[in-house]
Amino acid sequence: MITGSAGGATLQLEDLHGSLSDPVMSSMTLLNEAAGRFPQAVSFSAGRPYEEFYDPLQIHDYLERFRKYLEVERGLDPDQVRTALFQYGHTKGLLTDLLVRHLAVDEGVSADPDSVVVTTGCQEAMILLLRALRTGGEDVIMAPAPTYVGFLGAARLMDMPVLPVAEGTGGIDVEDLVVQLGRARQRGLNPRACYVVPDFANPSGLSMSLADRRRLLEVAERENILVIEDNPYSLFNADGRRLPSLKSLDTAQRVVYVGSFAKTAFPGARVGYVVADQVVEGAGPGEGPLLADQLAKLKSMLTLNTSTISQAVIGGKLLANECSMTRATQRETEIYRRNLAAVLAGLDKYFPAPADGSAPRTTWNIPGGGMFAVVTLPFEADAETLEYSASRFGVLWTPMRYFYPDGGGTHQIRLSFSVLTPEQIEEGLARLAALVRDRTA
Amino acid sequence: MITGSAGGATLQLEDLHGSLSDPVMSSMTLLNEAAGRFPQAVSFSAGRPYEEFYDPLQIHDYLERFRKYLEVERGLDPDQVRTALFQYGHTKGLLTDLLVRHLAVDEGVSADPDSVVVTTGCQEAMILLLRALRTGGEDVIMAPAPTYVGFLGAARLMDMPVLPVAEGTGGIDVEDLVVQLGRARQRGLNPRACYVVPDFANPSGLSMSLADRRRLLEVAERENILVIEDNPYSLFNADGRRLPSLKSLDTAQRVVYVGSFAKTAFPGARVGYVVADQVVEGAGPGEGPLLADQLAKLKSMLTLNTSTISQAVIGGKLLANECSMTRATQRETEIYRRNLAAVLAGLDKYFPAPADGSAPRTTWNIPGGGMFAVVTLPFEADAETLEYSASRFGVLWTPMRYFYPDGGGTHQIRLSFSVLTPEQIEEGLARLAALVRDRTA
Repeated sequence: MITGSAGGATLQLEDLHGSLSDPVMSSMTLLNEAAGRFPQAVSFSAGRPYEEFYDPLQIHDYLERFRKYLEVERGLDPDQVRTALFQYGHTKGLLTDLLVRHLAVDEGVSADPDSVVVTTGCQEAMILLLRALRTGGEDVIMAPAPTYVGFLGAARLMDMPVLPVAEGTGGIDVEDLVVQLGRARQRGLNPRACYVVPDFANPSGLSMSLADRRRLLEVAERENILVIEDNPYSLFNADGRRLPSLKSLDTAQRVVYVGSFAKTAFPGARVGYVVADQVVEGAGPGEGPLLADQLAKLKSMLTLNTSTISQAVIGGKLLANECSMTRATQRETEIYRRNLAAVLAGLDKYFPAPADGSAPRTTWNIPGGGMFAVVTLPFEADAETLEYSASRFGVLWTPMRYFYPDGGGTHQIRLSFSVLTPEQIEEGLARLAALVRDRTA
Repeated sequence: MITGSAGGATLQLEDLHGSLSDPVMSSMTLLNEAAGRFPQAVSFSAGRPYEEFYDPLQIHDYLERFRKYLEVERGLDPDQVRTALFQYGHTKGLLTDLLVRHLAVDEGVSADPDSVVVTTGCQEAMILLLRALRTGGEDVIMAPAPTYVGFLGAARLMDMPVLPVAEGTGGIDVEDLVVQLGRARQRGLNPRACYVVPDFANPSGLSMSLADRRRLLEVAERENILVIEDNPYSLFNADGRRLPSLKSLDTAQRVVYVGSFAKTAFPGARVGYVVADQVVEGAGPGEGPLLADQLAKLKSMLTLNTSTISQAVIGGKLLANECSMTRATQRETEIYRRNLAAVLAGLDKYFPAPADGSAPRTTWNIPGGGMFAVVTLPFEADAETLEYSASRFGVLWTPMRYFYPDGGGTHQIRLSFSVLTPEQIEEGLARLAALVRDRTA
């Protein structure tokens, strides 16, 4: 309810959508706020890409490349170029042709341009999918716990419950997925899809094996659900080897593929995309036959089109790199490899195995790439511990519990290392070791 | 349900969100599709801004102006400028200071930067508001019928019912609003807000009188609802005179103001904003106290931030015009004035009053500005009539019925004149007159 007063109308938080009272929605705000209060701390909490290679002059170059592409490759006259850059655009976007090339070059995915929708970051792609799949009280989505907080938040916004599936050392536990699907159905729920980040997941850093990828697709087919593959980190492997994306293995159109340029180009542009080649029966006259067409219809009432200016800049970056983001991110990939090695070396150094042969009390996983590693501490890692860590030891990290909405990760922390130098990593881990000594003394 | 086949997974439209089966969502697709099939027709259907003054080179100039503003006025060093342009940005946006200046200069609105959220077009602003205000089955929004289709679609996406209020010759009928609020409450519903476009509304072209503006604010206060003021056309008046915006008259913080640069700058950028200075009680620790802060929290899970590149371009345009969009759009305003005069003159010419003194069978309203006029025909104007009009007479228009989800406007058409020349308008109205003769013969 709204109450009036001399100072004007006042609303109550409880009278606004339930997501606004959900800890999932404010956890990231709280973390950012903590980071802001401790600017001198070494921060293992920022999930941002490395930015030293960005240059504002590039923006002009990319824009100009894309303008020329519209003229030369697409055959638009100057008036049509002007319309493409300034007016309301096609809902599916200006980049679908270039994205198809990128998917072929970098991901081994053969996609039809009609199945692609350019989105305002991959966040909008998730919102569109969740909106499309939520028809009533029974619809739910499965996701491994821990889960990317942006997906949890998007689901909360769309009133879509997310049911947790266990994770093993190779990401989602496909056997547990089958168990959880059965339990959900026994409760009268209708699982629509399973969300996964198969490569170097945020926050766990884990990757699925090839066998598990195949098994997940088989389960999706047998259990009649979709798979939402979110793939922002696959290019940043530590050893130059890539496992095939789920979409490239998907012969039965079970996979909806969500792509992002936030890490491979830059986040500010807010350009992502979704590949949804599933056929939808019952679509209206004049509408395309694919799930992508239905997602575009939703998008036409959400953001209308993705910023043409942003698309032009990302398009220019694609063109400057023959549509290979592997090529475009060579320097960043080296940085992330260097930093992952520094994190693992530092953890070995500062948390050596006990000399008496007993089990180590601080452990960590060994990701094959990406921007994140997870450390398990011998004590609870909550907001209060984080505050203590920042104020007393000058080191920030992310409590893993924020990624487990149904509980879990109580003793774990996520170390994000994408924007640090090896020296900062070394210093940060030394400080973390001091915290651990303090808390276990 | 999803069925598998040799061709892959197939979904049923009925298993996707109900909005996807709603005619509101596909009406614009159908209209665009019709326009595409009749490229030679004179089209009174496009709601786009005039584009002849756009130039791709401007984009570079605007970007460079904004970069310098960040350095000189905001005092950012080159690394901070790089971060601002490339990284994830503040959820509320980079433009809040410039928007406050623009609101003061052009709209007589005195706003606190903390109350402003930059959005991915005003469409996202509407989505955020609708999401915030929809907590359960009772929440509804009031809006005059006819209503902007983008608002209807946004409400459909957020599962928010829109209850119609009658329109008079001066936009929303404030007396009927009171009646409809009473009826809604009798039905156990909880009206949260009333949506209005007070200046040259899309689709009606109507504007509210000053007395009605004051009355609407009194009703909002007395009836304890918010007013959502959507204001994309106010600068495009026909006579240089402006009535005060609702927000500038709002002493009790009842008005949430939604702004757009789609018509004053250009649509492709997808930059809009919302001013929400209402206090929210019960917000969490570390959160700001305003409704704007809650909308930003929702935005952080919807689009994260508005494209930094788009914000830079729009910011550059604001800077190039001392934050006055009135100044920035002088040439376009002249075009719209010229075209509105041509429409009204053409209607007088082609639909003269009957010589025998009887009541005219084709009538129209006389908007005080904007991009739209409404003509009432002596026969039903539906999709079939539109097809006939386009194929036989070479003229396209928009059936008003699409803007009345609960019925209405059956004999009315919207004439949009923003992108036409006076010659095209003359020719289009001659063709419309031929259709009317044919249908009434």
